[in-house]
Amino acid sequence: MEYYKPFLVILSCAVVVGIISIIFVLRWVLYYQGGLAWNGGLAEFNWHPVLNISGFIVLQGLAIIVYRLPWSWRCSKLTMKLIHASLNLVAFIFAVVATVAVFDFHNAAKIPNMYSLHSWVGLAAVIQYCLQLVLGVGLYLVPFMPVSWKMAFMPIHVYSGLILFSSVIAVALMGITEKLIFSLNNPKYKDLPPEAVFVNILGLLLVVYGALILWIATRQSWKRPNDQTLHSLNSDGGGEDGTKVGPALSQLSDAAEGEDFGEVRKRSNKYDDQVN
Amino acid sequence: MEYYKPFLVILSCAVVVGIISIIFVLRWVLYYQGGLAWNGGLAEFNWHPVLNISGFIVLQGLAIIVYRLPWSWRCSKLTMKLIHASLNLVAFIFAVVATVAVFDFHNAAKIPNMYSLHSWVGLAAVIQYCLQLVLGVGLYLVPFMPVSWKMAFMPIHVYSGLILFSSVIAVALMGITEKLIFSLNNPKYKDLPPEAVFVNILGLLLVVYGALILWIATRQSWKRPNDQTLHSLNSDGGGEDGTKVGPALSQLSDAAEGEDFGEVRKRSNKYDDQVN
Repeated sequence: MEYYKPFLVILSCAVVVGIISIIFVLRWVLYYQGGLAWNGGLAEFNWHPVLNISGFIVLQGLAIIVYRLPWSWRCSKLTMKLIHASLNLVAFIFAVVATVAVFDFHNAAKIPNMYSLHSWVGLAAVIQYCLQLVLGVGLYLVPFMPVSWKMAFMPIHVYSGLILFSSVIAVALMGITEKLIFSLNNPKYKDLPPEAVFVNILGLLLVVYGALILWIATRQSWKRPNDQTLHSLNSDGGGEDGTKVGPALSQLSDAAEGEDFGEVRKRSNKYDDQVN
Repeated sequence: MEYYKPFLVILSCAVVVGIISIIFVLRWVLYYQGGLAWNGGLAEFNWHPVLNISGFIVLQGLAIIVYRLPWSWRCSKLTMKLIHASLNLVAFIFAVVATVAVFDFHNAAKIPNMYSLHSWVGLAAVIQYCLQLVLGVGLYLVPFMPVSWKMAFMPIHVYSGLILFSSVIAVALMGITEKLIFSLNNPKYKDLPPEAVFVNILGLLLVVYGALILWIATRQSWKRPNDQTLHSLNSDGGGEDGTKVGPALSQLSDAAEGEDFGEVRKRSNKYDDQVN
């Protein structure tokens, strides 16, 4: 497992930073901002950062890298696609409810909607995420879709997913900036009270989380090998019941350090490699 | 040149969006915000968005993709490295002067420095950019640096550059949000006066510019071929004087559509490919 030590370190850091971010946003709204409720007031607004950070950022990040987890390679590609799509669907539902919360709050408080750059880029991200989900499911989960279509769309699907994820983090940073300016009055944001420091750190955590997820997602050597490669290693290292898949994956990990793994991948099914 | 049509279209869009962004920020500060000066007042602050958008964003974006320009492939790798480093150095100087401008303004107006998330992430980006420049020059422009070091550091250099570029755009979006909230009073930002719409559009332009640059930078097929490949094509298609490099590059473009170009690249110098 030599090869996967850096992967496991980076993955652990990402998970820890993601969990700390969720704890931070919960502490922010529960301790500093009056808690959570669904009453049209500030406590309903508070669902907006909580759901967006936990769902639209942390969960979306995990959905992006779910194919990279070596222990998921014993699952079929279809299973992994379903998990990837489901996590993204849950993240999308979180984002929609978060958007409803802020519209409700604005309407009740007679604050105009959709005036800020935060709201413009944020709503664009929610709409693009919806489109990404619909196209992703349509192309990669609907049976009998032509392989040529899957292949042609894959670079756009991956690129669009990563840009969306980065944009959502940028939107969150704008949202934090807005909220701290509007909600801190005595002392003000510029006086840097404890809440400002605490939420600024939350912003930094989101940047670090994004950077870690993007590092994992863009390492070619950490990609899930195609099914043919996995099948041949499973056949060598274990039976159909998968009890010896662990050692087989370990061999794969070791092989991936040298040229041999690259050669195995080159020989294997090109289409499968590209559409996954 | 069939293969480069999409490249040229995306590149042209990026350049046009970059130029429009610079025009927008100039119109913002000259028409809405009282112009430019170096007097410790608001007009000095105005250098902050102008220099950051033109230098730290638009110029940095061009520095990132400069290796991708096919007409630059007739230049030696060393020349291109010098151009890449010089553009980044100019962008860094713009960023430093932009930072000095805002500190000067804050100090004169007795506004605290470094309290906002914008300033935290922004200063971190300037420092990381400096580090990226020093390490980049040290590793790739200082002669006799071991190839193994160059290779080991290249994935980090590329990743760090792209994360930095994305972070700077996120910082700009936070800066725009702050500035519109603080500077618009009657009518306020929430009333969406023409200036707010105009600057929100500037924010959208920066997101689009970032997305276009990242698309260009992450297409493997648009990478500059290694020197050995270029040399062999130049030998087939033209002489040492480079007068027939154009047709040679045209052959390369055509070849790049099929498997042959990939094969040529696979056969060529592996080290060269990886450290470039």
